[in-house]
Amino acid sequence: MNHPTAAINGLYTDFYELSMAQALFMEGRHEEPACFDYFFRNYPFSGNYVIFAGLQTLGQALKYFLYDEDSCKALHELGFDPAFIAWLSNHPPSITIEAPPEGTIVFAQTPYVQVRGPFAHVLLAETLILNILNFESLIATKASRMKDALLPGQVLLDFGLRRAQGFAGFHASRAAYIGGCDSSSNVWSAVQYGHPAGGTHAHAWVQAFEAEDEAFRTFAKHFTGKTVLLVDTHDSLREGIPNAIKIAREMEASGKQLFGIRLDSGDFTRLIPQARQLLDDAGLRHVKIVVSDNLDEHRIRALNALPVKADIFGVGTKLLAADGSPALNGVLKLAELNGRPVMKRSDNPEKITLPGEKQLWRISDDGVPVGDYVSLSWEGRPPEDGRKYAALRTESFQSGSSLPRTDLDVVRSRVQTQKELFRTFLNTSNEQAAYPVTISNNLKDLQHELLQKKQ
Amino acid sequence: MNHPTAAINGLYTDFYELSMAQALFMEGRHEEPACFDYFFRNYPFSGNYVIFAGLQTLGQALKYFLYDEDSCKALHELGFDPAFIAWLSNHPPSITIEAPPEGTIVFAQTPYVQVRGPFAHVLLAETLILNILNFESLIATKASRMKDALLPGQVLLDFGLRRAQGFAGFHASRAAYIGGCDSSSNVWSAVQYGHPAGGTHAHAWVQAFEAEDEAFRTFAKHFTGKTVLLVDTHDSLREGIPNAIKIAREMEASGKQLFGIRLDSGDFTRLIPQARQLLDDAGLRHVKIVVSDNLDEHRIRALNALPVKADIFGVGTKLLAADGSPALNGVLKLAELNGRPVMKRSDNPEKITLPGEKQLWRISDDGVPVGDYVSLSWEGRPPEDGRKYAALRTESFQSGSSLPRTDLDVVRSRVQTQKELFRTFLNTSNEQAAYPVTISNNLKDLQHELLQKKQ
Repeated sequence: MNHPTAAINGLYTDFYELSMAQALFMEGRHEEPACFDYFFRNYPFSGNYVIFAGLQTLGQALKYFLYDEDSCKALHELGFDPAFIAWLSNHPPSITIEAPPEGTIVFAQTPYVQVRGPFAHVLLAETLILNILNFESLIATKASRMKDALLPGQVLLDFGLRRAQGFAGFHASRAAYIGGCDSSSNVWSAVQYGHPAGGTHAHAWVQAFEAEDEAFRTFAKHFTGKTVLLVDTHDSLREGIPNAIKIAREMEASGKQLFGIRLDSGDFTRLIPQARQLLDDAGLRHVKIVVSDNLDEHRIRALNALPVKADIFGVGTKLLAADGSPALNGVLKLAELNGRPVMKRSDNPEKITLPGEKQLWRISDDGVPVGDYVSLSWEGRPPEDGRKYAALRTESFQSGSSLPRTDLDVVRSRVQTQKELFRTFLNTSNEQAAYPVTISNNLKDLQHELLQKKQ
Repeated sequence: MNHPTAAINGLYTDFYELSMAQALFMEGRHEEPACFDYFFRNYPFSGNYVIFAGLQTLGQALKYFLYDEDSCKALHELGFDPAFIAWLSNHPPSITIEAPPEGTIVFAQTPYVQVRGPFAHVLLAETLILNILNFESLIATKASRMKDALLPGQVLLDFGLRRAQGFAGFHASRAAYIGGCDSSSNVWSAVQYGHPAGGTHAHAWVQAFEAEDEAFRTFAKHFTGKTVLLVDTHDSLREGIPNAIKIAREMEASGKQLFGIRLDSGDFTRLIPQARQLLDDAGLRHVKIVVSDNLDEHRIRALNALPVKADIFGVGTKLLAADGSPALNGVLKLAELNGRPVMKRSDNPEKITLPGEKQLWRISDDGVPVGDYVSLSWEGRPPEDGRKYAALRTESFQSGSSLPRTDLDVVRSRVQTQKELFRTFLNTSNEQAAYPVTISNNLKDLQHELLQKKQ
């Protein structure tokens, strides 16, 4: 059973990275030490935070980011130079990545990942780095937003693999679990990353029987987990729920308990209270109501504003395909080359980059984060000002080396702990409440100096 | 160099498929012959058509959809029954898929793919089938919509791999090419599927030099394709374009020609005419203007409404992540089991399914498609009524067998040919102009009969 990252090779890149790497090679500049910053420009989902995720996946993928015989042959056919191809095949990428731990809350325009290595190597790996970090961070953030819409005790299930964007499904559920899902239907992801897998049954199961009660009875007989019956195949209120109640009684007679019913269509504002009433009237207060059908954080919040609530929300399409903001616009920008700090001036002031090799600090006051601080690496630890400065990029690894296996539950807890710390900030919908990111005076001076310089 | 589908195994499925398959196994019903319909419910992107894509990818992936030793071990750890696991490992899925050729224009609520096989096998493969067909069809459709916004002679380039949803990038560019992109930056996809790869250079290239003209000169010296210079790293109008003009003249002196300049930021409504003017004034009318920066069909259309046009559009994020409708809501619904037609009645009239094993016909009048027609399989060819009925599902393959390799250029031409035939229909923005899909009287009768039946 291959890891999905095993499908990666050095061709998983943009054509222009290879063109540039080859031109650098021709100039003898391909091994100049380069330092790039990764950051994203705008918040997805009209939000004000992002959950950083994908670092472990990136570490695994980089191990396979190589030019083997077949990919060299392909490059030859594309017209690349034999000497350049030989260099590629003999020099596996040797880049160093420094980043916050997965599950860290991060903010826009802040260079929270640094990539260093031979110039050509970083360029070649750029596409892969962006592809993985952008995507997992996006999905973790979407899941976190859905989790934000839950009330205490409510549960969030990821059902989205079928609507994930193709093989994005490999990692979508991993990120969804990091962000706040309690369980996933994605068996592959659960097995690979060790998070819980679960699910109910489909309409096809009910259709496979002449009568719905027989379908429920048979499922309850064989299913060894928490039995949830899907009650909307024919008519939820008049057939599905009464049949589920009947089976719940039969289960009780044999010492088992029905865990829940699932509603997958119809008007939930009407169905949830009526379903609750039917169950309660039958003495089945413990039976949970699971709802699923194109839910997102907005619909969950609307349902939770009504007097009678569902217990469990199954989310799929809108979570795993990141409805609302289907891409995080993370970029990788050159900051220093061969010891020379560089920047992009740009016509667009917001596209001006921060030059030089930098360090990133999270400032806290009495344990509460109050801002991030960007300084130049040579500055070292910021001077004491009564607040605490903690380095944010505490993870570091080299491509090809083994990144220690991440325990997803640790990552997931980190998200929740941080969200608690950032609570006031994250809950505000006030545009003015952008998290403050400040830059050091030395960095400001350097930026100013390079802005002045006519290139 | 592995094919990405080689990362697939039998665990790439939803947990409930395994639960249901196991329960069927316990009942001795897992090998009952089943027939499922694939269709999507609503049009993505507020459009009125979808380009069918992903069939070749699905055929390749199904070959790997197996339960090997490692995945059986994982299933054992998840608590599945040893006898069931043994059946899985000894019985590779044997399902038959009938579908239109890739590149066919298809319509909502129309069962255009049929999946038949042992009940448990179809259930297990359901997630993979939906995952692949939904995604590639979605991206092909988005690309087609972007192509619809082009004027004759304009070119569409796919630059999106870095913003694709994770490993969705494996197939996103394949689908984008099918739908209408002329070239892709995605080297891996181009090599695997044989479509053209291309690109320009990045801002980092310009930053790597003390002076922009030196960066351009060096790139032009080494790049062997159509040289396009990215002019917006510092100041497009005052530095980038004048420098590109300078290099174009130097190139001409050595018998080469600059192909284009690329604008990647700023106000294109102002920059395109000014750039054109600067180039034309320099006698460089042949130099193309490439624009890129979060473009989609709407922005392309708006730019094309202005007097001076760009020549080439580089699209990325909004294409490969399917901005606007990030998932196609395709479903697989049981239609017949063990010779018994079944349907889902549902509280929601639009979720009522079409029962029975069916055939699908495209009706044309004087060569122009005028509607699709769904009948029961036993009905055979529809009676003559002066119009032509062509079977739409002409492709058929069994899981595990080799699907003939698709020539993407054939698929791509099919899209364009069909769009020409459907032209009047596709161009209308009138909600009433839904493409007519009718069902046979026998199918209507069967549906009516099953609706009446109290289960």
